[in-house]
Order: sequence, then C-alpha cells, then structure tokens
Amino acid sequence: MTMALSRRSLLGAASAGSALAFAGAPALGETRASLPQFGPAPGLAWLTFNENPYGPSPKALEAMARTSSAGCYYADDAAERLHSMIAERFGFPGEQVVIGNGSTELLTAAAAALGRRGAIVCPELLYDQPVEYARAQGAQVIRVPLRPDMGVDLEAIAAAAAASKAALIYLCNPNNPTAMLMDGASLRAFIERVPQGTTVLVDEAYNELTDRPEESSVVDLVKAGRNVIVCRTFSKIYGLAGLRIGYALAGRDHARMIRDNLMTLLLSSASLAAAIASLEDPAFAALSRNRIFEGRQIILDATKRLGLETLPSQANFVFVRVPDADAVAKRMAERKIIIRSAYGKWTQWSRVSTGKIDDVRRYAAALPAVLKG
Amino acid sequence: MTMALSRRSLLGAASAGSALAFAGAPALGETRASLPQFGPAPGLAWLTFNENPYGPSPKALEAMARTSSAGCYYADDAAERLHSMIAERFGFPGEQVVIGNGSTELLTAAAAALGRRGAIVCPELLYDQPVEYARAQGAQVIRVPLRPDMGVDLEAIAAAAAASKAALIYLCNPNNPTAMLMDGASLRAFIERVPQGTTVLVDEAYNELTDRPEESSVVDLVKAGRNVIVCRTFSKIYGLAGLRIGYALAGRDHARMIRDNLMTLLLSSASLAAAIASLEDPAFAALSRNRIFEGRQIILDATKRLGLETLPSQANFVFVRVPDADAVAKRMAERKIIIRSAYGKWTQWSRVSTGKIDDVRRYAAALPAVLKG
Repeated sequence: MTMALSRRSLLGAASAGSALAFAGAPALGETRASLPQFGPAPGLAWLTFNENPYGPSPKALEAMARTSSAGCYYADDAAERLHSMIAERFGFPGEQVVIGNGSTELLTAAAAALGRRGAIVCPELLYDQPVEYARAQGAQVIRVPLRPDMGVDLEAIAAAAAASKAALIYLCNPNNPTAMLMDGASLRAFIERVPQGTTVLVDEAYNELTDRPEESSVVDLVKAGRNVIVCRTFSKIYGLAGLRIGYALAGRDHARMIRDNLMTLLLSSASLAAAIASLEDPAFAALSRNRIFEGRQIILDATKRLGLETLPSQANFVFVRVPDADAVAKRMAERKIIIRSAYGKWTQWSRVSTGKIDDVRRYAAALPAVLKG
Repeated sequence: MTMALSRRSLLGAASAGSALAFAGAPALGETRASLPQFGPAPGLAWLTFNENPYGPSPKALEAMARTSSAGCYYADDAAERLHSMIAERFGFPGEQVVIGNGSTELLTAAAAALGRRGAIVCPELLYDQPVEYARAQGAQVIRVPLRPDMGVDLEAIAAAAAASKAALIYLCNPNNPTAMLMDGASLRAFIERVPQGTTVLVDEAYNELTDRPEESSVVDLVKAGRNVIVCRTFSKIYGLAGLRIGYALAGRDHARMIRDNLMTLLLSSASLAAAIASLEDPAFAALSRNRIFEGRQIILDATKRLGLETLPSQANFVFVRVPDADAVAKRMAERKIIIRSAYGKWTQWSRVSTGKIDDVRRYAAALPAVLKG
C-alpha cells in the first residue's frame, strides 16, 4: 500500500519527497557548526501527517529538559511511572498495559504475533503499516472493500473473518485516512458477533478527538475480558508525534505477547518524561482539541463553499473528494502547502490534516485556484 | 539468561529491583503536581548498567531543547540527517546504514531475521537480549563455553557454527559483562575462517572505549563486503543511554533485512537531535573517555590492593572475581552503592560500572569492608 511504503521509505536511503517537505533542514555539510532546525521549513503549511502542531505542551517541554539535564540513564523508572499512570487512569492492572515506541510499534507487534497464528482481516483502506509488516513476515492479510459510503464494512469483515478462521481483525477507529468513526454501539455489536478465537485489534489513535471519546472506545470490552486489544498514542491529542510514545490495553496474555514481541527494550527518557507531564496536563489536551476542531471547521467550510464532498471527520484530518488528489497535492505544494497525495486507487480522495490555524487558512484560500488547475 | 530477563522484567508489571534502585522517583500519587525527577536517587552510587554519567553533552541538551520547542512533528528529517552523517563518517553508502531505538533493537532485528534461517551461535556469556528474543521466536541458539581465561572461544565458536551450518554468529566486542576485547587481528582471522553462509554480527557498543577503537573494530570488513554486520550505539561514549539511538553498518541486503524487521517506524525527535549534536561534539566524547578511564583505574587500583582478580577491561565496567557476587552486590546496596548481582552460574564474578568519579570512589572505599562481610 502506498501509505505504508511512503512512510517506511522515508527511513531508507533515498527520499526525495521528504527532502522537499523538510526543506528547512540545512543540507549536509552546510552548517555543521550550528544546530540544525528540524520540522517543517518556515513558510511551509504542513498539513500532511496528522500531527498536532501545538505539542509538546509547556509542561512536557519542562519535564524533558529537567529529565535530560539530570543525566541520561536507562529510563526504567520513567517507563514504570508512565506505565502505572496509564494503568491507574484506565483502572487496569499493570500487566494489561504495554508502552511502546508510538502505537505503531505495539500494533505491529500484535499483528506480527497474531499473523503467525492465522489470517488477518482488515478494511481495504486504513493505516496499514502494522498489517503490511505482518504480511512481509508471511501472514495472510485479507483486505475487505469499504462500503460505498467509504465506511468500514463490518458485516463483510465478520464474514471474511469467519470464512478464513482469522486470528486477527484489525481496525482503526476513527479510520485513517477517511476520519470516519464506527460508532460504539455498532462496533460493540460487531465484537460480540466475532468468533471467540479471533482477536479484534483497534487502533484508537484519534479517540480523544471524537465527539464522545468514551462512547466510541472499546477499552471497556478489554476490561470485560473480551478478545480485544486497544492501542492509543500520545502523538495526536497530546501533540507528541515526534517523541514516539503509545500504549496498548489488552488482556494479560495479549499484553505479554506484545511485550515479548517488542524489539525495543526501553524508550527515550525525554519522550517518557514528556508523556508523563502531558497526562497531567488536561488543559493542554483541551486546548489541542479546540484548536483542532477550529482548524477542521475551516477545512469543512472551505470545501462546502466549493461544493466538495467530505467524509464525516472525527479526527484531526479530513478526506475530501476532488477530481485528482495527486494534482491537488502537487498544486498545493507549489504554493508551499503540503497535503497528502492520493492513496493508491483512491485517486479522487485527498487527505488534509489540521495544522496551525494560519496554515489551514492558507489551504482554504488556495483551494479554489488549485481546483481550477 | 539472568541478564536479559532482568532488563526485560523492568518493563513488566512488578519490578522490585528497580523500585529500590530508583527510589528517588516519587511514588504514584505522591507529588502529582510537581515534576518527578528520574534517574538514580540522590545519594545512590549508580554503577550497575554501564551508563555514562556525563551525558547528554551540553550541545546535545541544547539541540534537544531547540528541536522540541519547535514543535513535535514526525522526525523524518532528523532521522535522515543522522543517517547521512553516520554514512559520511564511515564512508558508507546510505543504504548500508540503519538507525534504531538503541543498538539493541537493531541487534534484535538481525538476530530474529537470521534466526529464522538457521542456528545462532554465540558465547555462553554476553549481552544476550537479542539472541534470547530470537530463541523465544523459535530460533536454535547454541551457546559456546568461554575459555578458562573468560575470553570468547573463537575456535570453538567456529567449530560449532560449521557443525550446525549456523546462519548467525553473534559476538560482543568488547564482550559484556567481561569487558574483554577480542583483538582485531584474531577477530579478522576468525571471520575469514567462517563459512560464507554464516553472518557474523558484532555488537561494538563499547568500541570507542577500547585502547585502539579503529583496530578493534570490524567495520572495515563490512565495507569490504564480508558477511558481517556491526552495531554501534550513542549510549556509551556519547552518554545517551536513556535516549535510545543506535546504528547498524551492514551490507545492502542485511541493512534491508534489518530495516524490514524493525517495528518502530520512527524514533524520538529529541533523541535524534541529541545524537546529531553529539556526533559533532568530539570534545565531549574525549571528556567521556578520559573520565571513564579515570573511574576504571580507581576500580582496578582498589581491587588490586585487595588482591582481587579482574579481567582486562576495554570498556566502562570491570568484571571482578569475588567470593560471592550476590553477597557483594547486596552489601554494596546496603551502603547505597548499586552494582550488578551475579550472572547466572558465574556466581564469583561481579560487574561494576564506571559511574561518576565520586561514586566509583565510594565503591573503592567500601570494597574492603564489603568483602569481609
């Protein structure tokens, strides 16, 4: 899939795309003596990777500085503290919580492990890095087409899982890149219907940005002992994408399975400190949420004015129907506005992330001319 | 093995050992409003995990603060820059370099992947997290006894590898916990002797602390196209243990294999920024090296005065022969000096890390009384 490959390739040797996007970082050898500035280059409207431009919170920055300046020891203690805080927050025993290098690592560990036991069933279009990893390791991955309304076809997924005796059903809720939510009631009914032997893994990366986070989450089903794993992240609501901290809530056996499959023994002390401070900063989370909603509304208003169809977004990005998503992305890039190009065969859907309000306004302002070509 | 299990268990639910060691972190709920202080508690001489107490360098701290305060975007750009810097430094094409969450992640990915192709042969005593991971995934791991002098028995390892048609020979050089170096000439001759189909993976985590780093490294054999993978880390010489950045130098196929097996898509932006700044700070690396040697000499002098045998150390720790390593660790802990307890059946060998000079002095001063019991 385009999505997985495009992120993965950034870590490879050649990566023209990100070189363009991150034009602000000085070329190698250019300013060796001075500190490079990372992140989007100044002047770039960065609306492409569903990041939250407001993080880290000031408290997280303070915690990072304090932790790092005190030495750079293996962060077992910070990891344990974050682990306890998450367990307490959700009312879970500690052994049902696993922290990882972003939720991707945890999703991947779960998909890889369960993919060795049987087929993986997932929607055709979603954040597919974890299942692509499992597939590369030999797992059978069955992708189920979306419904005509671009929603996840739970009916068809249940049927495919039953037919293949799937070990794993993998879902993102809200889904990415569509931003569409499966409502809690439907998802719960679906999970009740899934055969006992099939684990349901739900990536809830954007949960805190839904209208009713608690209702749309299935964390309660994990707690009730159902065959469900939920992954969450500090990347979105807490604005810590660059720092790579996520967590999984799972049954004891699943939690052990995930932990045993992680190749990272420990995580970055600075990142853990930021996550700990963020958990204690509900005011920042509220600010994030409000700003993200504000940005999203600007996108929705702009697309509506132009008569463009958008999918109902419950996340910090919007999937917009356009004549040619690659052309739109290219013309936006010419205006230094960076949004996603097309996802494989979905050539008429363009994903735009909510970034800084001014940057979202630039997108909205550029959209009429960009659509004219 | 004790070693792997003891680190891994720290991430689990219960962890009495580290709770003791990190007594400085406030208990959950105690000081929720204030920022917790991580790292060894004040008053503790922390000489147990081979960390470098001098990191991060001031430049690394500055780079972290600068990077983090500029927002928290996915750090593709910082990863690419570090990647290029390492490639340039070693004169490798970019595709032969892989960055990971500490070298452990890279060693583990390599061991897991090659362990699926055939047996893994390694010394009986070494940093065994990577091979224990592979073993848990079903790999056959053949452990070869050390020589009577506690050195790695390359002769016996070559024989075991040939007999088992091993896919992988895994070595640490210097070895951990013995701190003993296999000299470059012996290791090169050994690698020449190993059958073509067997990959040699060398963890060179402590290379920069050896007397002649370049001579004792086999990076040149990777460059020459031999079937060798070398892993290095920012944890030791650069004092970034808590930040988790390591790298692998490998042939194109091996590098791709490692990259394809990593479950972490990206690394911490703060950690990457610290690593980048550290690479450009040779003065800090020199300071680290000098202080570590100073601490090591204090340990060697103290043990010599007491007539204790020590293995020749080429790293930031010393393996000391004592009557009962667990008893020594326990009595040291009673004096708030934290060193390693025994490694499995090696009950008479005690590993002590070089920490802050004052802390090493406390170890040296306590040693006579501790040995008396």
